[in-house]
Amino acid sequence: MAKSSAGASALSRVLAVLDAFTTDAPFLTLTQIHRRSDIPLSSVHRIVAELVEHGLLEPVAGRTYRLGNRLWEIGSKTPGALGLREIAEPYLRRLHDLIGQHVQLAVRIDTDVLMIERLSAPDAVINGSIVGDRIPIQHSTSGMVFLAFGEPGLVDAVIERGIHPVTAAGLRTAEALRAEVEATRRRGYAIADGWIHPASRGLAVPVRGSEEVVVGALGAVIPNDASSPRRVATLLRETAHRISDALLRAYLPAGHPRALPGGSLRALVASSAESMRYLERRARGRG
Amino acid sequence: MAKSSAGASALSRVLAVLDAFTTDAPFLTLTQIHRRSDIPLSSVHRIVAELVEHGLLEPVAGRTYRLGNRLWEIGSKTPGALGLREIAEPYLRRLHDLIGQHVQLAVRIDTDVLMIERLSAPDAVINGSIVGDRIPIQHSTSGMVFLAFGEPGLVDAVIERGIHPVTAAGLRTAEALRAEVEATRRRGYAIADGWIHPASRGLAVPVRGSEEVVVGALGAVIPNDASSPRRVATLLRETAHRISDALLRAYLPAGHPRALPGGSLRALVASSAESMRYLERRARGRG
Repeated sequence: MAKSSAGASALSRVLAVLDAFTTDAPFLTLTQIHRRSDIPLSSVHRIVAELVEHGLLEPVAGRTYRLGNRLWEIGSKTPGALGLREIAEPYLRRLHDLIGQHVQLAVRIDTDVLMIERLSAPDAVINGSIVGDRIPIQHSTSGMVFLAFGEPGLVDAVIERGIHPVTAAGLRTAEALRAEVEATRRRGYAIADGWIHPASRGLAVPVRGSEEVVVGALGAVIPNDASSPRRVATLLRETAHRISDALLRAYLPAGHPRALPGGSLRALVASSAESMRYLERRARGRG
Repeated sequence: MAKSSAGASALSRVLAVLDAFTTDAPFLTLTQIHRRSDIPLSSVHRIVAELVEHGLLEPVAGRTYRLGNRLWEIGSKTPGALGLREIAEPYLRRLHDLIGQHVQLAVRIDTDVLMIERLSAPDAVINGSIVGDRIPIQHSTSGMVFLAFGEPGLVDAVIERGIHPVTAAGLRTAEALRAEVEATRRRGYAIADGWIHPASRGLAVPVRGSEEVVVGALGAVIPNDASSPRRVATLLRETAHRISDALLRAYLPAGHPRALPGGSLRALVASSAESMRYLERRARGRG
């Protein structure tokens, strides 16, 4: 893409403007965007005008902007995030009915986990997870799942980046991290008491896609009350198996006896069986 | 942004590449992207390489690409889509427990509705809605909500664009559309038997934000069996009022006696009360 005089590509600058908007600062003025993105104010003016024109930013009252629904629309076509969440959603709801508290689903981006869904209850225990926000991989049980069951080089990459525990109960050294990874492998699930907050316990298990690759982490955040984690761990494992099975069936070639209805839509859509057959016919009619 | 020789801005071309990926074609080769975006193959090569570098596209097996989780991450900061869905989600779940079938939430983009959430059941009736996909506003009860209770000029804009019914039961003329808008206003909710499919009935009610502006449409898709719609309509209306109340409370200034906990995070996050207080303290500590 065209390089600006500052050396950054046009796309880099657009992303810097979009990344200025965060969960705790979703409404920004031009000056705030300029300060947070480190892009000259005159360029911010120009980029924001073009982003508004395309619906990626929306003006709100008080000379303020917010990220636009058009951006959410584009992001909703990601098989790895929304597609996984669509397939997992009915199973997450059933799991939440059984466990209550918080039930959540995360994917990995580099050495972070990105939370893509969380079902909570008003009186549930403290949970630091925000849908759409990242947590450093070594700070969460979802992350431990990727370290223990994911790509081999990941543990070294995290140690190289540095371990910075959030609470006194968190992992503090490379040795502690390696030992925890080993323990998680033996146990088959990750568990952490008070890593994010002393009141809370996290548990997580891998969700596997094709060729047994870990594509997500299914987790629960429950009270840190020294009770046996066995029931929750078992429910998580059973649910993860059901999600993995649904994922595998969604990616089977059409015509396979175990393929789910819905054809090429299945990577992004999970509706009722009749709806999937209808949507498949409709998509074929268009194609 | 810099203009290419073809006259389209760099951002337009990036969006054309991203828009090549659709719900029924989420995995594309470079040649497919080129055909669908109408961008020269050499430019597609260059743009795709840069998008992969930033994580907006992800390479998969077979020289194929899919939209990346990084894109979903950026889209998850939109107050109008993900924020609304976060606030509405517990109420949608409760409504789905009562109605079963399909329960859904839509926003408006121009003269389309964009479905941002749908809860379904495996044996539910046929529903054409796909999370992340658009439906022309006059084809759905969610759209009728925006026509009847939304911006005044919208009905004329839709008539100007042209009415193209999906089934024989759909609206066919400008007069029929205007009459339906009037009926929806009188009734207080939208209802349509067999507009998308003869087997299905849609109902929808407005979700209002600050200053009574309609920010979303809450809908249900149920069997088209000539039974009284009263119970479902009442449940939809009650739920929409609860969501509107939660939205208003999320946008009240911090310190207001009715403001929900969570400070500036409330526009994008809805977790347990304890979690919101914790997240607010954490965000303040960072700020």
